[in-house]
Amino acid sequence: LRIVLAGFGVVGQSFAELLVLKSADLASRYGVVPRLVAIVDSEGSVLDGRGLSIKKALQEKRTKGRVGDRNGRDTARIIAETEAEVLIEATPTNFRTGEPGLSHMKAAFASKKHVVTCNKGPLAVAFHAMHELARHNGVQLRYSGAVGGGTPILDFGQSCARGDDIVSVTGILNGTCNFILSKMEQDGATFDDALKLAQKEGYAEADPTLDIDGYDSAVKLVIMANHLGLSRATVKEVKIKGIRGIDSREVVRARESGRAIRLIATAEHGLSISPTSLDRNDPVCVSGAYNAVKFHCRFSGPKVIIGKGAGGPETASSLLRDLLDIRGAFNEGVTA
Amino acid sequence: LRIVLAGFGVVGQSFAELLVLKSADLASRYGVVPRLVAIVDSEGSVLDGRGLSIKKALQEKRTKGRVGDRNGRDTARIIAETEAEVLIEATPTNFRTGEPGLSHMKAAFASKKHVVTCNKGPLAVAFHAMHELARHNGVQLRYSGAVGGGTPILDFGQSCARGDDIVSVTGILNGTCNFILSKMEQDGATFDDALKLAQKEGYAEADPTLDIDGYDSAVKLVIMANHLGLSRATVKEVKIKGIRGIDSREVVRARESGRAIRLIATAEHGLSISPTSLDRNDPVCVSGAYNAVKFHCRFSGPKVIIGKGAGGPETASSLLRDLLDIRGAFNEGVTA
Repeated sequence: LRIVLAGFGVVGQSFAELLVLKSADLASRYGVVPRLVAIVDSEGSVLDGRGLSIKKALQEKRTKGRVGDRNGRDTARIIAETEAEVLIEATPTNFRTGEPGLSHMKAAFASKKHVVTCNKGPLAVAFHAMHELARHNGVQLRYSGAVGGGTPILDFGQSCARGDDIVSVTGILNGTCNFILSKMEQDGATFDDALKLAQKEGYAEADPTLDIDGYDSAVKLVIMANHLGLSRATVKEVKIKGIRGIDSREVVRARESGRAIRLIATAEHGLSISPTSLDRNDPVCVSGAYNAVKFHCRFSGPKVIIGKGAGGPETASSLLRDLLDIRGAFNEGVTA
Repeated sequence: LRIVLAGFGVVGQSFAELLVLKSADLASRYGVVPRLVAIVDSEGSVLDGRGLSIKKALQEKRTKGRVGDRNGRDTARIIAETEAEVLIEATPTNFRTGEPGLSHMKAAFASKKHVVTCNKGPLAVAFHAMHELARHNGVQLRYSGAVGGGTPILDFGQSCARGDDIVSVTGILNGTCNFILSKMEQDGATFDDALKLAQKEGYAEADPTLDIDGYDSAVKLVIMANHLGLSRATVKEVKIKGIRGIDSREVVRARESGRAIRLIATAEHGLSISPTSLDRNDPVCVSGAYNAVKFHCRFSGPKVIIGKGAGGPETASSLLRDLLDIRGAFNEGVTA
């Protein structure tokens, strides 16, 4: 199983490490021997059709800041021209253009490669077009790491929908906002102080706009709703209200009455993102950098999934899960 | 898709109703047109190779207490001799002998039928033998309704395990015990009063032994641990302590210190069932007739699933999910 890895940041490196750590297990349990034949990122690229030394590549990235040589060709072209079965797309997310992930995915599909990605950008701007391209080229597209990090929220939603109907979805899809709101609640911190702490602890970006203004949640909600066939809405159709500047007195007041303010994504009549007061006993009302989603099903009632929504090793485990699912689809011999 | 339904109690009837309610959806979304060609239970049986009228069968069951004529042949023989692709096994559970489900499943496998069951009995007494028989006959065995009712606990565990390693499992697998403990906690009720209430509201059987002594939880834990490849233990190897006669003062004391007593199933170093004091903020610490399971994963951390653990429509939705999964396995044209 030959793999091209695009993006060698936190998630890409975690994925490479996971391949090393799990190699014996992958061979014995799934009959899969992954071979990383190319690593490409914005800085450089290394290629070896026989399989790269992952350990060497990781070490090089850590010492030099990039792998291999500066790119002569553009990344999409390297992806198209490298012989492999799967592209793992883990480059940084751009919600506005979807790039560079969008071009990477197109190049992979055009050269008949399956795509596994955790990049929300291309899905935010071209969800149905990407599916159409995959189908047209007879390959698969998987993206479970795009929603919920390592927590299999999309898989779980599909399990809920098969044999039942999902009536509504409510949940927390952004761990950064949840960390901030939990801090404000526990310590009576102001929004600004809680945000600074989130940045210090690595939960929030230097530019936290996409998280705190609700845009990241909205994109994930759109991916989930489209994936589950609940809606064909795009991000423009989501009513979005974020948590920027939320009053700490409001947060503390909620706590004192046995409730909590959370940034809640809802798919029921339309899609929306909004700070919402929840009963503390509601299982969706988790604290800290977690995600939680409730699928309300017609016959089997409410079902909730909770887990970490981000992180390198977490998201890498989703990439590996998707890779095994794709492998399962073209190899009936797996024993998963 | 021709189906034999064995067992026409609460779950069997709910499943039949679900087939009627979802028929248009099954055809359009999955290309599946299920045809119920036989309903057999301990009281009687009806057969029609062209497909039974489900509505008529449900009405007959409700008015006469059984469907069709009293059985001339034994049920296993009817299962073996009826032409069909799938057996849905929903007869009552017997943990000691596995019967009658065990014989039904053997008859189905011998006649090359896939089996979908929510019956814990045959899995408790012959988990690996049943898998072996299915494999030997080239058919599938699915049983997601056996653990968690309509909540896809086994599917979720598999999602967690793919791409990661499950380090430990802790959870609440018996809704009856959880209802009783929640009542004791909320109202200060004694164990006996809470049990009576659970019986009155239909959560506990007239003979509640299997629930309150932890045996039902132990069987589910064994099914889950074997399914996920965490253990090959049988029920005899589970350390079991139930909640019978638990002191209400102990329950109330836990509440007063921000904790709660729950009957917890654990798979880590061996398997055990035991009343355990949990932090109320632990997401596994749900109240009422719910199940909750936490899978602790090596790379992606803890992940929790919560949902109703029993009930007719709930369990029926699991049977339908399994049926669609089997259908998917022998029909690549599905669009699920």
